[in-house]
Amino acid sequence: MRLRKLKNSSEIINNSKYIINNPYEYKNKWKEIFNNSNPIHIEIGMGKGKFILENAIKYPNINFIGIEKFDSAISRAIKKIDEYELNNLKLIRMDACELDKVFDKEIDVIYLNFSDPWPKDRHEKRRLTEENFLKVYDKVFKKDKVIIQKTDNRKLFEYSLYSLVKYGYKIDYVNLDLHKDVDDEITTEYEEKFMKETPIYKAVYKK
Amino acid sequence: MRLRKLKNSSEIINNSKYIINNPYEYKNKWKEIFNNSNPIHIEIGMGKGKFILENAIKYPNINFIGIEKFDSAISRAIKKIDEYELNNLKLIRMDACELDKVFDKEIDVIYLNFSDPWPKDRHEKRRLTEENFLKVYDKVFKKDKVIIQKTDNRKLFEYSLYSLVKYGYKIDYVNLDLHKDVDDEITTEYEEKFMKETPIYKAVYKK
Repeated sequence: MRLRKLKNSSEIINNSKYIINNPYEYKNKWKEIFNNSNPIHIEIGMGKGKFILENAIKYPNINFIGIEKFDSAISRAIKKIDEYELNNLKLIRMDACELDKVFDKEIDVIYLNFSDPWPKDRHEKRRLTEENFLKVYDKVFKKDKVIIQKTDNRKLFEYSLYSLVKYGYKIDYVNLDLHKDVDDEITTEYEEKFMKETPIYKAVYKK
Repeated sequence: MRLRKLKNSSEIINNSKYIINNPYEYKNKWKEIFNNSNPIHIEIGMGKGKFILENAIKYPNINFIGIEKFDSAISRAIKKIDEYELNNLKLIRMDACELDKVFDKEIDVIYLNFSDPWPKDRHEKRRLTEENFLKVYDKVFKKDKVIIQKTDNRKLFEYSLYSLVKYGYKIDYVNLDLHKDVDDEITTEYEEKFMKETPIYKAVYKK
């Protein structure tokens, strides 16, 4: 979901205490950034940041990194997150295809929340659960590979089941109407808006 | 779904030209029954028989065997099927756990349509996609293993995704709202009744 760009978004982004502006320099050194060896969870496409912020507050012994390529989204996330003092949260503005330039066997969990479904066949390679992205994730996962996906897009979820299992992932958990069964889920802004109208699909994949 | 027993169900079953009353004698000999080497597809729990009958009519070069343990269902199936002259269809009254006493590497495809969901945890072993059933299926599949499942029961479908992938099956096709996408599907009686009210889930698993 593209957002209108905030007027002073560059300024907001550059001045945030949460933004890592030169993430490529920290490859292999993310422990130093957080000053501990806690697990690192990343959200690819964190949008307006509600999900990663609430996770960081709830789980102080996990380090969270929100990744987002659009200034319009990341500047909104920052406006919200800058009000908190959290040592276990960082934000990076970049494209997911560059993940392996920034991390080297350092990640424990990847969250893919309401990713762009790229419904056209010719755009398959852009989906974050397509084989080439899975290969990139292989390089950044520490050891066990855990991908946690949520979406309301049926076709993306069906495709992801097919693609991840083909690639060797097992399905550790799957729910085809999440909010009928669960009431303590940390949601995204988008999820909050649409979960009453449409089923939310969730899966935890492990390899 | 349990049905009221037909008055003369034993008579209907025993007199049908489609019923194989002594299936254990045909282990390794199903080619002889059909008098050809065409692929054999079985439906476990064929209920009132609409699905297997329409498949047998549509695909004369595939042999179909409907399996059902309840007299109440199989007698209704027979009343319908006995009106046709089909050389590629047989029916067996038995429980799925006995499959490997009747077939030995002879089956190409197994259909599981709207199977009993056995929702309680303590009944997990009764679900037709539980590991012990998958082991039985391994013994009856010829070479490639293909399980095609349809259900409206979300919890059974979620469980089956987990269980079959854990066992080594890949997901060849999955659809989480079948009748929104497809209009030439051969349906069961039950499916026909409920497909307008509730999503029908379908998956094709291969190993």
